[in-house]
Amino acid sequence: MYRELFNDPQNASEKIHVNGELHPDVRVGMRQVNLTNGERVVLYDTTGVYTEPGYEADTQRGIPKMREAWIAACAAALPEGEFHTQMWYARRGIVTPEMEYAAIRENAGLSPGDRGYITPQQVCESIAGGRAILPANRKHPETEPMVIGPEYLVKINANIGNSALGSSIEEEVEKALWAIKWGADTVMDLSTGRNIHRTREAILRNVPVPIGTVPMYQALEKVKGAVEDMTWEVYRDTLVEQCEQGVDYFTIHAGLLREHVPLAQKRVTGIVSRGGSIMAKWMAHHGRESFLYEHFDEICEIMARYDVALSLGDGLRPGCIADANDAAQFGELKTLGELCRRAWAHDVQVIIEGPGHVPMDRIRENMDKQIEWCQGAPFYTLGPLVSDIGAGYDHITSAIGAAMIGWFGTAMLCYVTTKEHLALPNRDDVREGVVTYKLAAHAADIAKGHPAAIARDLAMSRARYDFRWLDQFNLSLDPERARRMHREMVKENA
Amino acid sequence: MYRELFNDPQNASEKIHVNGELHPDVRVGMRQVNLTNGERVVLYDTTGVYTEPGYEADTQRGIPKMREAWIAACAAALPEGEFHTQMWYARRGIVTPEMEYAAIRENAGLSPGDRGYITPQQVCESIAGGRAILPANRKHPETEPMVIGPEYLVKINANIGNSALGSSIEEEVEKALWAIKWGADTVMDLSTGRNIHRTREAILRNVPVPIGTVPMYQALEKVKGAVEDMTWEVYRDTLVEQCEQGVDYFTIHAGLLREHVPLAQKRVTGIVSRGGSIMAKWMAHHGRESFLYEHFDEICEIMARYDVALSLGDGLRPGCIADANDAAQFGELKTLGELCRRAWAHDVQVIIEGPGHVPMDRIRENMDKQIEWCQGAPFYTLGPLVSDIGAGYDHITSAIGAAMIGWFGTAMLCYVTTKEHLALPNRDDVREGVVTYKLAAHAADIAKGHPAAIARDLAMSRARYDFRWLDQFNLSLDPERARRMHREMVKENA
Repeated sequence: MYRELFNDPQNASEKIHVNGELHPDVRVGMRQVNLTNGERVVLYDTTGVYTEPGYEADTQRGIPKMREAWIAACAAALPEGEFHTQMWYARRGIVTPEMEYAAIRENAGLSPGDRGYITPQQVCESIAGGRAILPANRKHPETEPMVIGPEYLVKINANIGNSALGSSIEEEVEKALWAIKWGADTVMDLSTGRNIHRTREAILRNVPVPIGTVPMYQALEKVKGAVEDMTWEVYRDTLVEQCEQGVDYFTIHAGLLREHVPLAQKRVTGIVSRGGSIMAKWMAHHGRESFLYEHFDEICEIMARYDVALSLGDGLRPGCIADANDAAQFGELKTLGELCRRAWAHDVQVIIEGPGHVPMDRIRENMDKQIEWCQGAPFYTLGPLVSDIGAGYDHITSAIGAAMIGWFGTAMLCYVTTKEHLALPNRDDVREGVVTYKLAAHAADIAKGHPAAIARDLAMSRARYDFRWLDQFNLSLDPERARRMHREMVKENA
Repeated sequence: MYRELFNDPQNASEKIHVNGELHPDVRVGMRQVNLTNGERVVLYDTTGVYTEPGYEADTQRGIPKMREAWIAACAAALPEGEFHTQMWYARRGIVTPEMEYAAIRENAGLSPGDRGYITPQQVCESIAGGRAILPANRKHPETEPMVIGPEYLVKINANIGNSALGSSIEEEVEKALWAIKWGADTVMDLSTGRNIHRTREAILRNVPVPIGTVPMYQALEKVKGAVEDMTWEVYRDTLVEQCEQGVDYFTIHAGLLREHVPLAQKRVTGIVSRGGSIMAKWMAHHGRESFLYEHFDEICEIMARYDVALSLGDGLRPGCIADANDAAQFGELKTLGELCRRAWAHDVQVIIEGPGHVPMDRIRENMDKQIEWCQGAPFYTLGPLVSDIGAGYDHITSAIGAAMIGWFGTAMLCYVTTKEHLALPNRDDVREGVVTYKLAAHAADIAKGHPAAIARDLAMSRARYDFRWLDQFNLSLDPERARRMHREMVKENA
């Protein structure tokens, strides 16, 4: 099964592999597009084992545990029960197999000596300095290592997740695979309702990219949705449960403090982040500071034991342009900077989440303040949407802002689908959203001068000039759509 | 007919009118959205008479000739055969009915005294200074006056046009009306093949927005497509024919000189503009300077007699990001600046066309150089597309660049459809392209701080916060799509 999901016999490309040198068992898959003029273009590949020739998927068995031996070797070299994060190794100058893997991956389309060629040491140094993360829970050996940071290719995340009324476990796995087919670098499972644990288990065992979650969503299910009944213990147990399952990064809204809430009450749309709303409600009910903030060091200790990366959530992200860059948003961002330093003290890898709805003229300020207050930790933004009136087109409203902030230095862009604000996305919406965000991320790479990104555009333009249609299809972000649109016209005119 | 095209009984909005003060017979239609909380939001309206209650369209008769009396009054005040352009009047401080009309239109959603409220005098002064144009051929009394300039709302153009193999005249009129339904401010008819004259006639008599053309396309049909047989006389006669018909603005590639051609030969994709290619070929064949350049003053004299605005074409617009901002492109842009001054000497209104394919980091330079070299004449750009690999998604690739350059000061954005580089757009593609560009233009207005644009977003955000779904649909750019997406989900979950 899933074979047809990845099958595109008309695409003249093949899986190739590049081996590690420091770690000879590192073997990185890439996609090589074979052009009709004999040239080859090598592309970054997020599809993992699913596009290995002859691979037969089996959801029950799951995909191969690529990192199993590396994790075992680490454990064997340490006293019983001890474990260290990628950041810990990086700070000691130790290049792990994961780091070499991610470095090789970044070099798709580049050769040693090329401008922009990434060495494993560079990945190691940027992780040590907090400027990049490599999300890879030791309980998720299936994930293909990748690196998120402003020095690297701009990454994109796709959110999936069933709701109480929504889809089946099988459908969610298929949606996640569908997202990586189109190029999602990470997938966040935002499921609610029943079957959260089983849905996540199926995704973790079958999807070869880092998986993120918002643990609060499951914690809240455990107290039957009653925010006032939430306790640190319920939340902590949920963290441990998800760490054990293999989640690679957690969104935690620990930066939203009591002092920020009055600032948000002056807003047009108040608090729109679900995690933010939950914490604001909890603090109001109990008349206490956020338990996420008060137990922050314990949270970091748990995450460090598994190497789960911390995505510091922006519970006060603006929900409309009128609220952009306000005291509430920036107050929280400053706290995120403080928490970032504290997490680093535990060797926990950190990214910082950002908005939301921001008009074009105020996007740069978000990036500048984030860099200043968060010491260069990678920024991970939702859009931003540059207007509020794009309902039905909000993948575009947000791609405009995403491309810009990606150019300014944001490391990962969380996609927004066509149906944002209106309905839950279906399969077509996921595809449209992911490809739109690949485009925004690629445009940012181009603007940042990434040589492999520029080379792909050059190959495309030469194919266009030569009327090599097949090459144009295969070099585009969505070969199936490009091919269909062109062929329909050719057929109509025949 | 065409009634169903504009009919949307579920949309809680109505046509309202604002009358002129200087010219009491000026009566400007706008769209008022009536919100469920009793508030009202007034929107700029491009649909003209088609959304007047009870209007029955008749393609044979055409739409009412709104400007007929104004044009007649101008003629009556002048010696027989004399005629002057809007720029001529503006330079003398005379506020025409057209200027007052355009000023009132810009104020949709604003009240006198509001920040950004536009006076007829301001429109007059900006036209006098060449910073804005009001394209309105005296032979096109059907057009509703509007103003294009960086001080005003960012406008969008939709290209339509049949090809030799393509659609019927009826279909082209319907496509143009479909474009204005979704908000196109002007329409360019780029038809080729047979029936060019009749197609254009049907569009001019039935579409209430300024119509642009590239006269070279028809001139070339007259010499059976043989570029080498093109003569000044054939071209001149085509200009006169189209002036007489009522075309409001011409794209003329008069800035592409012999000296620029070698610069373009070094490029990855050479000359991608059709008009540019034709002129390069003509110059190479005849070994002579461009006849458009050599006869430029005669061209201006013809256009001044009808008040056809001049859109100085960028025959050397880059066709890929590798060619962006190169010596060929900027060499031509400098010449466009020179021609702009010469056209102004004839009181001809001028806009300057711009690229094309430009990476995000090099967009600003386009705007800066255009302002410097073209003395503040409005800029009119195609996109720009910020990458070359977006085939099948190029409405988005280009909307990213369009939103940015609109914010930087570009006055009008020429849309790019989903099928750019692949096929001719159909009805769905026109809608998707126009709405995407309305979104880009609106995002630019927001970033420029336009108070009515900001107010619309605010009304939308308040409706969102209050879960007023009907108001959200009606305030969005495509109420039909927003409504459908939301209702499908509600139905699925019922």
